[in-house]
Amino acid sequence: MNMYEIIEEKKLSKNLSKEEIDYFIKGYTNGEIPDYQVSALLMAIYFNGLNTEETYYLTDAMVNSGDRIDLSAIDGIKVDKHSTGGVGDTTTLVVGPLVASCGVPFAKMSGRGLGHTGGTIDKLESIPGMNIDLSIAEFIENANAIKIAICGQTGDITPADKKLYALRDATATVDNVSLISSSILSKKIAVGADALILDVKTGSGAFMKTLEEARELSKMMVDLGHKFNRKTVALITNMDEPLGYAVGNALEVIEAINTLRGEGPRDLIELCLNLSSKLLVLSGKFNSEIEARKLLNENISAGLGLEKFKEFVSMQGGDISYINDLSKFELSSIKREIYSNSEGYVKKIDALEIGEVSKNLGAGRETKDSSIDLGAGILLNKKIDDFVKVGDLLATVYTEKESEIERAKNTILSAYKIGEENKDEYKLVLDEID
Amino acid sequence: MNMYEIIEEKKLSKNLSKEEIDYFIKGYTNGEIPDYQVSALLMAIYFNGLNTEETYYLTDAMVNSGDRIDLSAIDGIKVDKHSTGGVGDTTTLVVGPLVASCGVPFAKMSGRGLGHTGGTIDKLESIPGMNIDLSIAEFIENANAIKIAICGQTGDITPADKKLYALRDATATVDNVSLISSSILSKKIAVGADALILDVKTGSGAFMKTLEEARELSKMMVDLGHKFNRKTVALITNMDEPLGYAVGNALEVIEAINTLRGEGPRDLIELCLNLSSKLLVLSGKFNSEIEARKLLNENISAGLGLEKFKEFVSMQGGDISYINDLSKFELSSIKREIYSNSEGYVKKIDALEIGEVSKNLGAGRETKDSSIDLGAGILLNKKIDDFVKVGDLLATVYTEKESEIERAKNTILSAYKIGEENKDEYKLVLDEID
Repeated sequence: MNMYEIIEEKKLSKNLSKEEIDYFIKGYTNGEIPDYQVSALLMAIYFNGLNTEETYYLTDAMVNSGDRIDLSAIDGIKVDKHSTGGVGDTTTLVVGPLVASCGVPFAKMSGRGLGHTGGTIDKLESIPGMNIDLSIAEFIENANAIKIAICGQTGDITPADKKLYALRDATATVDNVSLISSSILSKKIAVGADALILDVKTGSGAFMKTLEEARELSKMMVDLGHKFNRKTVALITNMDEPLGYAVGNALEVIEAINTLRGEGPRDLIELCLNLSSKLLVLSGKFNSEIEARKLLNENISAGLGLEKFKEFVSMQGGDISYINDLSKFELSSIKREIYSNSEGYVKKIDALEIGEVSKNLGAGRETKDSSIDLGAGILLNKKIDDFVKVGDLLATVYTEKESEIERAKNTILSAYKIGEENKDEYKLVLDEID
Repeated sequence: MNMYEIIEEKKLSKNLSKEEIDYFIKGYTNGEIPDYQVSALLMAIYFNGLNTEETYYLTDAMVNSGDRIDLSAIDGIKVDKHSTGGVGDTTTLVVGPLVASCGVPFAKMSGRGLGHTGGTIDKLESIPGMNIDLSIAEFIENANAIKIAICGQTGDITPADKKLYALRDATATVDNVSLISSSILSKKIAVGADALILDVKTGSGAFMKTLEEARELSKMMVDLGHKFNRKTVALITNMDEPLGYAVGNALEVIEAINTLRGEGPRDLIELCLNLSSKLLVLSGKFNSEIEARKLLNENISAGLGLEKFKEFVSMQGGDISYINDLSKFELSSIKREIYSNSEGYVKKIDALEIGEVSKNLGAGRETKDSSIDLGAGILLNKKIDDFVKVGDLLATVYTEKESEIERAKNTILSAYKIGEENKDEYKLVLDEID
């Protein structure tokens, strides 16, 4: 067995064996197989694909490339969620506390974001004092004590995926269902929650542009989850406009807190209730989503979700005075309002363009070593189906970069598609794969 | 412009511009673009191809990546030949002297072989004293003085091709018409003969397994030659058995000398006359192949081809006593005869398997730094359409490696397909593209 033959086989569209995939992942992780052979294989995979078996072998090999974290010391069915990456996606900060408030342990290890905004970990750091570097013992202890723990990845989890992802990112081989699925699932399997909900975004602002692609990816990930004996459900959700109104790190934390207060944007709360109720059913504690949703709504009304969030922040060293007084969050010093120059209904808000603006304003990372401006971002003022007049406020941008304002303004104006009223209602949840 | 975008475009089957191809080749040659991005692009090219324009840009960029050798100081129309690599292919050592004996300058810079036997340069080194490291001035001087000069590549010719070829060889991206064509043509264009004949091998022992593939490759190379204003013709020739009887370095030199004496194998002399007569017509010195072939035959009969070979060897310091007494060539010390274990007609001799045996016996290189046993190889005793009885001599192997004998014997026995008489005559020249 050698790497040349493995490349040749995939090039000729043959199926790779478990032994071949193990050989490739082991050799690549320990540096014996060079990048240039792996990138050739990745491109052959882009063209000829991997079937479900091969994708399972790949995922398994990546899981075995590094440490596995045993969460069995956490009582009950541990749940986790993953989003394939939307714009303004603050759901984790709402779903986590809500699920925990219902007595189900929410245990999530999260990466830092490389995209339009930071990841969950970055967002949490906009609360002063927040410690996201938990040891495994602390992570387990917190999850047992208050049913919620969120921290950065600890230990050497799926080093093969880290190396492969960096290579895919440099060689235009990111967009393949099997490579995406194995990357996401390997990290989840290595950390080891029992039930997983996948929020697969589709639409202009998402990686999967069409519903068909999103279904294919969802099916592959759910199949993989099942092969690893994890309860797994995928929800395909719409990204034809950013989720909620806030895009940015501190801005999204504020929006999450408002949502836990019952004052969140309609689409964000709807998606959070959807994801949370499914997790509660997956946990086995609830028999039906209706029942679960009832309790979730009660917990929001009674302030139990918000209480859980404070408990979580406090447990990890964060300053809860920020949660009690949202004006304490420091936003970037330059604040500029963008006004509409046309009249009509908002038909669509290109989420990808909004995301790009957010990154350029300082809220996202260009490379993994870039620093991030936690106070930067965009607060939308109009959403799909809203009526807009000339001169109406469309959005407010926050940044430290005066030089970016003009471009941000133009991009936001072009991202808002304004015209006749949409005939169909904007549908947030498009499909469910389980 | 950046390499990521170039990979992405080719992945999506878009055409690359001249600027993009120049950027890629320059960046790769000077080390700014890493191997792993180039191998991803190569695999995308394998799947989506390059059109004739793109292949021309690639070839041109490779030519411009290094030195160009100006042969204009050689009087007349300089001719050159290239074979895509067969087994037992000794034609250069026959065609060169024959063409030169007709007054047409044959000026060839050749590489060392990485294959079943060495290249022309290696073969020539089995004549003691032979100097194949000529300076450009010597190369030109010899070509003017005696109309023939053959030497190793001098200067820094097509460094981009060297780097690319090594990468293709390690990443299963050799077999693409545009990549093969640009690799071959760039070297020929950089050295600069005026007319070129391409011997494109097809069949089980060749790189192009089918006539269709060979035609596609031939057409691309001839088109490229024309775009660079070189007279270019491709002959598609059969490799369903090795050419001639000898496979090895010294063995093939002996066979070439016998052929120049008029005592060569029928297929080898036929192919050499074909290639030579076409080169003579391309040179403009002859109006028709019939006329050219007449003189070639006369020169063989009169011993002028052999005289030219001696003159050439002598001019480059070789010991011509070897040519006068072929028994002086030192063959490997172990000589073993292989006898048939079946009866019937030879239907086919798998040239690839014979080539592999030859390499394993020591006649070829495993890697570019391997040493070669110039005395090793195989002398076939039976060819296609010969009748064979049990116990008849099929082939004799020469090697220093006792341990390889058993495997060689088994492989040779399996390479000989013996059965009923072939219905159709073995056709050596299958097509001509010009």
